[in-house]
Amino acid sequence: MKSGLSFLIAARRCEINDLEQLTRTSALVNVIGHLVHALQKERGISNVFLGSQGARFAEQLPLQVRECRQAEDELRASFDHLDTDAGHLSNGARLFSRIAFVLHELDGLPELRQHIARQDVAAADATAAFVKLIAGLLAVVFEAADSATNPEISRLLVAMFNFMQGKEFSGQERAFGAATFASGRTDSQRQQQWLHLIQSQERCVQVFSDFSTPELRELWQSGQSPATMAELERLRRIACSAAAGALDPNLSQSWFDCCTHRIDAMKTVEDQLAAELLSLCGQKIVQARAELHDHQMILAAHNGHANGMPVAAGQVSPPALPYGPHLDRSILELVQEQASRLQAMSDELETTRASLNERKLVERAKGLLMAHRKLSEEDAYKMLRQTAMNQNRRLADVAEAVLAMADYLAAGKP
Amino acid sequence: MKSGLSFLIAARRCEINDLEQLTRTSALVNVIGHLVHALQKERGISNVFLGSQGARFAEQLPLQVRECRQAEDELRASFDHLDTDAGHLSNGARLFSRIAFVLHELDGLPELRQHIARQDVAAADATAAFVKLIAGLLAVVFEAADSATNPEISRLLVAMFNFMQGKEFSGQERAFGAATFASGRTDSQRQQQWLHLIQSQERCVQVFSDFSTPELRELWQSGQSPATMAELERLRRIACSAAAGALDPNLSQSWFDCCTHRIDAMKTVEDQLAAELLSLCGQKIVQARAELHDHQMILAAHNGHANGMPVAAGQVSPPALPYGPHLDRSILELVQEQASRLQAMSDELETTRASLNERKLVERAKGLLMAHRKLSEEDAYKMLRQTAMNQNRRLADVAEAVLAMADYLAAGKP
Repeated sequence: MKSGLSFLIAARRCEINDLEQLTRTSALVNVIGHLVHALQKERGISNVFLGSQGARFAEQLPLQVRECRQAEDELRASFDHLDTDAGHLSNGARLFSRIAFVLHELDGLPELRQHIARQDVAAADATAAFVKLIAGLLAVVFEAADSATNPEISRLLVAMFNFMQGKEFSGQERAFGAATFASGRTDSQRQQQWLHLIQSQERCVQVFSDFSTPELRELWQSGQSPATMAELERLRRIACSAAAGALDPNLSQSWFDCCTHRIDAMKTVEDQLAAELLSLCGQKIVQARAELHDHQMILAAHNGHANGMPVAAGQVSPPALPYGPHLDRSILELVQEQASRLQAMSDELETTRASLNERKLVERAKGLLMAHRKLSEEDAYKMLRQTAMNQNRRLADVAEAVLAMADYLAAGKP
Repeated sequence: MKSGLSFLIAARRCEINDLEQLTRTSALVNVIGHLVHALQKERGISNVFLGSQGARFAEQLPLQVRECRQAEDELRASFDHLDTDAGHLSNGARLFSRIAFVLHELDGLPELRQHIARQDVAAADATAAFVKLIAGLLAVVFEAADSATNPEISRLLVAMFNFMQGKEFSGQERAFGAATFASGRTDSQRQQQWLHLIQSQERCVQVFSDFSTPELRELWQSGQSPATMAELERLRRIACSAAAGALDPNLSQSWFDCCTHRIDAMKTVEDQLAAELLSLCGQKIVQARAELHDHQMILAAHNGHANGMPVAAGQVSPPALPYGPHLDRSILELVQEQASRLQAMSDELETTRASLNERKLVERAKGLLMAHRKLSEEDAYKMLRQTAMNQNRRLADVAEAVLAMADYLAAGKP
């Protein structure tokens, strides 16, 4: 019959298994980061190429496509290494569905590239296709962050997801700005969209800061070169000032270079974050294994005791305490220690995960609009974003307001 | 290389695996229910025995102990059947730690019974030991409810946990009332504690009603015999009325019988709930398997297509759509369908789980008091309950207030 101690050991094994799974997921997140980075650049280059009617970046584009293909192969190989047969990955149903979506979008990429090369797709439509694919890739990262059971690792994954999301808004700003400068004109609606992208970046970076380590915050601060930031803000000011209408198409190149410089610096922070994530997983596994070993030693001692090892002279055998008084006390302590540790972990985890709720609110509001207004996912998101921009409110606040109105939306159905 | 479709299939497999695990956990919950029921009765009988200085229930007690031992053996056998080696049970770390605690408490039961038989333990202390063990058993049920990933099953598990918790408060009322009547006297503090037990039952049964099916609500209503309820309320009124001081010890037997009649009726509802839970798990597995089969058929069709099956005359082979136009559309639909289904499940799950937050709040507040006030778990709970009784507030509200005061509690430390 299994003892309490053997269940403590089983609990530790589950913990170690969770940690090993987190290590694999963290490695996957890292590979996703590489592909996202390459795609963000391809999106920017494609936009300049399309915006300038093929006059700019005609040479860089195929080179960047090749880089993307390499990163895609690397990611597909990582997907192939995932254990999809066992069916016992916690959160597996969600994670694998997200991956299925990503693979479906990746399969459509060659066709999109043909359209871009032939210049028979609008810059905005090409951007939208890239945005959709990258959003799918970030959704995989989100599921990883949402499934972590260790609070410290969860904190780093939340920092990672928000940093990647912030970097994606920077990438969208690069692509949007590149197309706008290249087209030689802007208007108030574009300016509003631009400002929204800037605010979205800042919010994500704030969450990253909140959940990150001091070293990573320091790396992020020092990576933001003052010269690059000054040039970035100057070009933003030119494009977003009230008097703007006509823009100098030549600024497209400066804008792209300056954004790229900044985004490449972000990638350095992201890589460092990924390295720390893996190292933290490794530490936690070593620690959990050492504790498992301690438990196993106690169990071995107990089994020796129970198997009739000699009882010291003068020691009364205590029938009510199955492990002997000393072992019984140490097991009770272990049980209590483990229970309060798991409780503390669970509390901390809840606090960390709360920061993921913002995204969940937006997802739910989108779902509601899709169901009751018969909108596509993209249009539902656009509707939410437009309301946020018009009312100058946070996207999550608008989502919350939409969810609060759920009954009214449903009542409006035919 | 794995296709998007193969990941959809893997996602389904994970879902089926989760459902099978839920089936096993639900079966375990059922066995726990049997032991809890037997222990509740032993607690009540022990209390009458101790309260009457051994004058009552001296014969019933050993019979009930034997029933408990059988239920305990059944539960230990169920624990033995759990797969503790694989280490991949989702929520395994928490579940197994809870089981370790239960086994530790069960190991101490023979000694408690010796004390009861020798009447060298106070009724209140014996009750406290049983309450602690049953709380540990219910914590296992709670973990099961908290780990369910299917919203419908989660609803039934939440109904189950709350019903079992409500039944436990009924059992505590039976034991408390039995000891009070048997001792022949009461006072205002006991009356207050009694009323608190009544309110706690009502709150749990309300949550059960909210999350249960109409059939189960109907069964619960019809099981509450008017004659039993009238007698229960009459005895409650006698013991709790302001003028009460001396009580007729002979009422101890009527009280015990009437409560037992009611609690046995509750057990019928619990058994039905357990049966519906298992049947729902079975249905969901059949459904998920059918859908998995559909996916596999599509994958087989695609593989046939990719392996050079003849293309109908006049049909142009579309290179950009890897599965052919018909299959590609159906896969995209599958991906979208699965994504929105998982989203809907996740939303519903969140709503259901929110009802488990009340318990989590209390656990967190207890932990805070234990850490900052150096209290035992029991004393921390007593302190919360006393405050709730004094202020006539819900336990969860008091817990929330304590958590809000966390900084003040910490600041008070030496």
